[in-house]
Order: sequence, then structure tokens, then C-alpha cells
Amino acid sequence: MRIHNFCAGPCTLPLDVLEEVQGELLDFEGSGMSVIEMSHRSAEYEAVHEDALTLFRENAAVPDDFTILFLQGGATLQFAVVPMNLLGEGASAGYVRSGTWGKGALKDAAAWGEAYAAWDGESIAFSRMPSDDELELRPDTRYLHVTSNETIEGIRMSSFPDIDLPLVGDMSSDYLSRPIPWERFDLVYGGAQKNLGPAGLAVMVVRTAALEEMHTDLPSYLRLGAHADKHSLMNTPPMFAIYVTGKVLRWMKERGGVAGMEERAARRSGSVYDAIVGSDGFYRSPVEPAHRSHMNVVFRTPSNELDAAFLAGAEEHGMRNLKGHRSVGGIRASIYNAMTDEGVDSLVGFMAAFRDSAG
Amino acid sequence: MRIHNFCAGPCTLPLDVLEEVQGELLDFEGSGMSVIEMSHRSAEYEAVHEDALTLFRENAAVPDDFTILFLQGGATLQFAVVPMNLLGEGASAGYVRSGTWGKGALKDAAAWGEAYAAWDGESIAFSRMPSDDELELRPDTRYLHVTSNETIEGIRMSSFPDIDLPLVGDMSSDYLSRPIPWERFDLVYGGAQKNLGPAGLAVMVVRTAALEEMHTDLPSYLRLGAHADKHSLMNTPPMFAIYVTGKVLRWMKERGGVAGMEERAARRSGSVYDAIVGSDGFYRSPVEPAHRSHMNVVFRTPSNELDAAFLAGAEEHGMRNLKGHRSVGGIRASIYNAMTDEGVDSLVGFMAAFRDSAG
Repeated sequence: MRIHNFCAGPCTLPLDVLEEVQGELLDFEGSGMSVIEMSHRSAEYEAVHEDALTLFRENAAVPDDFTILFLQGGATLQFAVVPMNLLGEGASAGYVRSGTWGKGALKDAAAWGEAYAAWDGESIAFSRMPSDDELELRPDTRYLHVTSNETIEGIRMSSFPDIDLPLVGDMSSDYLSRPIPWERFDLVYGGAQKNLGPAGLAVMVVRTAALEEMHTDLPSYLRLGAHADKHSLMNTPPMFAIYVTGKVLRWMKERGGVAGMEERAARRSGSVYDAIVGSDGFYRSPVEPAHRSHMNVVFRTPSNELDAAFLAGAEEHGMRNLKGHRSVGGIRASIYNAMTDEGVDSLVGFMAAFRDSAG
Repeated sequence: MRIHNFCAGPCTLPLDVLEEVQGELLDFEGSGMSVIEMSHRSAEYEAVHEDALTLFRENAAVPDDFTILFLQGGATLQFAVVPMNLLGEGASAGYVRSGTWGKGALKDAAAWGEAYAAWDGESIAFSRMPSDDELELRPDTRYLHVTSNETIEGIRMSSFPDIDLPLVGDMSSDYLSRPIPWERFDLVYGGAQKNLGPAGLAVMVVRTAALEEMHTDLPSYLRLGAHADKHSLMNTPPMFAIYVTGKVLRWMKERGGVAGMEERAARRSGSVYDAIVGSDGFYRSPVEPAHRSHMNVVFRTPSNELDAAFLAGAEEHGMRNLKGHRSVGGIRASIYNAMTDEGVDSLVGFMAAFRDSAG
């Protein structure tokens, strides 16, 4: 029996996709081989690769003057790769220190070059994102790095900064659940293992003009231009993750692409937030309303004991991975694109029943 | 119908393993989730992760004073990571420029620090490996980098250099097909996609004492110590590749581990080399006999036309991916651990029949 998996990532994938993968696993399209046994230089795999690139471009409405790269190492490797490629001599990078991932991105960038916090939400317990006029930017700033959604704290940028500097965005946890205003960005990246597919793939989208100005003296895997030149086939790519991601992107396209996913995310996170707001204070969200994530709904009951009872009861009702991140505790329902409506309905129903039984 | 897949990588995997993966794909051990949907912090996944680490240690007889790391980015990212972590101020690294991969490793190391060719096989068309007394080592050398097997040129180090310097080895294409003299190495690495599992995983084994002396000011993903501290769970690992690799390692252990694989490799590559040697000059190997790879058997017929006819005929008989690398041409039979004896027998039989028909 399939459970409702509210994991923050890796996370639930569409059952249709899993069934297709299962059906093809021993013999991919009559090739006599599994997709995980194929040469990455074969015509069969190249079609899979191109298909996934094209579907990503279509779903995310990536303009022609941006290049899409399939990389490895998760968003964490990109924390290093971004400044290595973008930060020239005498330039600095501003970072929105908006939560656990914004902190991590800044720390890794500062280990490489000149990077600073353009805003820091730590003193307000990362309960919201900054407004544009709160950003403190140095004149030598090459880019402002933002984390569109903080998975652990459950906050998101409801709109992206509209400033006179190119943005760089880590969109790992809300990739392809919302439109991206490409004109403001030089680069966007994210791990696949939330909205796109299995762990082991990171998708980066970079303005081609910016790519052409990047450092060329880095070792090959760290040089974005080397990946672009070889169409993300410089070395053996994470083929299985790309293959599954392609199927998820097709599933997404059939459901209205990013516009469909955005409506879905607003409606479904909204029903959980409504259950919180309508609970007469039994459930509480630590996040300011305008900044609440559409992907990761973070909340608490009146006590740690009730939080624990809630998690145990939810598990009995077939809902797993609702525990908040170990650094913040409480409850977290991650409602990524592939979560079913039934899963969300179960959660909302259980929230009401649990409150009644505990009240 | 399954074909005989002689691909140089990614490559054939044991059918038993593929069937197990297929059977578990929708519901891993009764969890109600696919293995590609599980949290990397879950008890289920942690058991998979530990199991794969333990089986690698057992199969490769890794001593207790070495740490095993599961990384991403293929061997190519490690070309950068190795000097970034091992090369201190004023130190250099010697590289055996033994073929396509040795060249690549040196080029990437030189893009980072002081690296030089301690031997260069280019003038002899990479037809053999060096002897110890041919190595020219500078006094400031921190390590000598070797490529144990050159996948494209089809040569291997039949024994590793026995010198007064620690070795670093790229063993991507003969990992776990031969014993490793750990006392000579500070670090060994390789991509999984030949003998171990699907693409997207690199396995590194590093002397723990060397790890403790490494640079600590690098961005986190590039810092080997950061991966070691978190047991290769610093960020989301390539879980599917690790999961399949664990199953392949169990398959390998049941067949005598590295000793079994070594015997198998010698016997099976030997039968193809015997077919070459016994062909009265119809088939030719460009590699000196003592340096012939046990994994990648490279050979030619008397002409390019006959090479093409050989490849077409082999394909008709259910043998695929026998074409030599585009940079060298000819024929290449990659006989990794998971290749079946039937596949090798088919090839040897076809070689005899083709020679008879063309002679």
C-alpha cells in the first residue's frame, strides 16, 4: 500500500511515473538493456537527455537566451560553483540570509570569494523574507543571491526582488511550482529531489551572455562553460535521475505546466493554512502570513507532547514524514507538485479530528 | 530479450540485481514508498547507505584506517577535488600521463595547482604503462597520480608503482576487479558506472590520517573532511545509485569478492586475447601484452571496412556497443564484472566465425 509521503525531500513522485519506470527497467524501449546500463553516448540515451532538457525549458518558460545545465552535487556543490564562475577580481556577492539554506549558500560563497549578507533574518528567527528596501547592497556587488523558498523554516519569497542587480536564485524547494521572472535573473539552480525527480541531479539555468563572461581557468567539472559546450554530457551524467525527471516533467506538462502547479500549490497549501488559522489557536504557524511557503507548511500544536501525538496519529492514518526538521522541531507538511489531493485532504481531515480529540 | 552489452560505461549490470530493483520500485520493503521517494535521513535509507559502505569495505578489503566516501560528479569532479584537498602550499603532484583519463586528470589538477607529468605515454601512442624507474619525480611531490586502467586505450597497470611516495589512483574502470595494495595509496577514487552500479555515484577511499591534514577552508561540497564528518550524508546523496551499488556489491560478494572478480576478469579477457593471438594476424591488439587491460579489450581487423562489418555482424548476433572509442576507432569489448560468460563466449565464437568468413 502506498502511503502519503510528506517528506521535505527526497519526496513523493507521481505513481504513474514510478509505474512507467518499473515497466521499462529491464528493457528500455526494446533496446535489450536497462536505462541504467546504456551508454550516455547512445542514440537512445541522447533522446532521453534532449527530451528532459526540452521539457524543462517548456515547463519553466526558459527564454532562448538562457542555457540549461544538468549537473551533480546537489544545490550544495552549486553554492561553490556559482561564485567560482561569476565572481571576478574586485567583485563581491550579496546574499539574502533568509534561513538554513541561505546561510549555507553564503558560507560556501565566502569560503571562495568576497560574499556578504545583504539582509539577515536570523534575529527574527527567519520568520519572513526581506522587502526590497531592506536590502543593503555594496557598490561592487556582482549579483544578489536569494533562496526562493526556505524548506526548513517554511517561508518563501512571494515576489522576487526588483532591483538594479542580476539575481541568482536557489530554487531547490519550489522549482517549477511558480513562474520565474527570467529578466531579473542571471542564474537559477536547484536540486531535483523535490519537484523534479530523484536525488542526484541539479538543474541550473544560466543566462548565456553571463556564461560567456565566466572564468575559464577552472578545473573542468567546476567550469560551467565546459558543461554548456558539451550539452551537459562532458562526463557521464546522472542518467537515471535525468530519465525520471523527464517523465515527471511530462506529467507536469500534461497538468498545465508551471501555471497548473502554481494553482495546485496555492490551493493545497492554502487548505492546510486555513486549517491552522481556523483552529482557534490550537495550531500555530511561526511564519508571517504573506511569507508562508506553498511547499513546506510548518506548524505546531500547543505542546511538544501533542506534536509527538499528532505525528504518531498521522502515521497510523498512513501519513509519513510530517516531523519538522530536527533544527526547528514541530510539524512540517511538504506538499510538492507530486503530492496527491487525497494526501492533502487526509491531512486536513486528520488535523480537525486531532484537534477535536485533544481539545 | 536482453542483449550482450559490451559498453565501456555505463554498462551491463547483473540481471538478478535489475530484477530486484524492479520488484521493489513501487514499495521498498513495505515502507509504502519507492526508494527514490525516501528521505535520506530515514532509517530505511540509512540502512541501505550503511550496507553499501560496509559491502564496499568488505569486497575491496579496505583497512580500518581508510574512510570511504560516496560522492557525486563522477571521477571528473574528483580530478579537481584531489589537488584541492591534498596539495598544500609549495607542494606539487606528479601524474602518470598514461592515456585519455590520465591526461584529463593532469589537466584539471594543473588548472588548480602545481601538477606535472611524471611520465608521458603519448609518444608511444599510450600502448603501455611505465616501469617504476621511468618515473621522473620532483622532490616537492606530494603524491603520484595513476590511472589503473585506461578505458579508451585498453591498457592497465599490471602492478602499481612501488615508490617512496603515496599514490593516488583513479580506478574508475577496474574498481573491484583486482586487489588494491592499500599501503601504497593515500587515496583511490572512481565512478561507479562500470563495475559498481548506475552513473551518478563516485566512490572515494582516503587514508584517514591524510584526510585530517587536508585543507579546511574550501566550500563544503569540495571539502573531503566535510563529507567524512557527515558519513557521506552532508547533503542529499545519489540515493538510487548507492542503493543499486549495494545490491551489486552483494552480488559480487556472493561470487568471491575481488578475488573472484579478478579470476573472472583474467579468464574472460584472456579468452578474447587468445582469440586475437590465435587469429594468425587477422585480429591485432595495439597494446603490449603485459599491459593489456582485463576490462577493455581493444583490437582491430585488417581494415576499417572489416571493422565496420564486424560491428554490424556482432550486432545481428545480439552483441552491442563493441565500437572503439571515437578517438581511437576499431573495436573494443568491455568485459566488466557483470558481463555474463555467455556474452564472452558469444564474442569469441563470433570472432572465429567472422575471421573464417572474411578470410
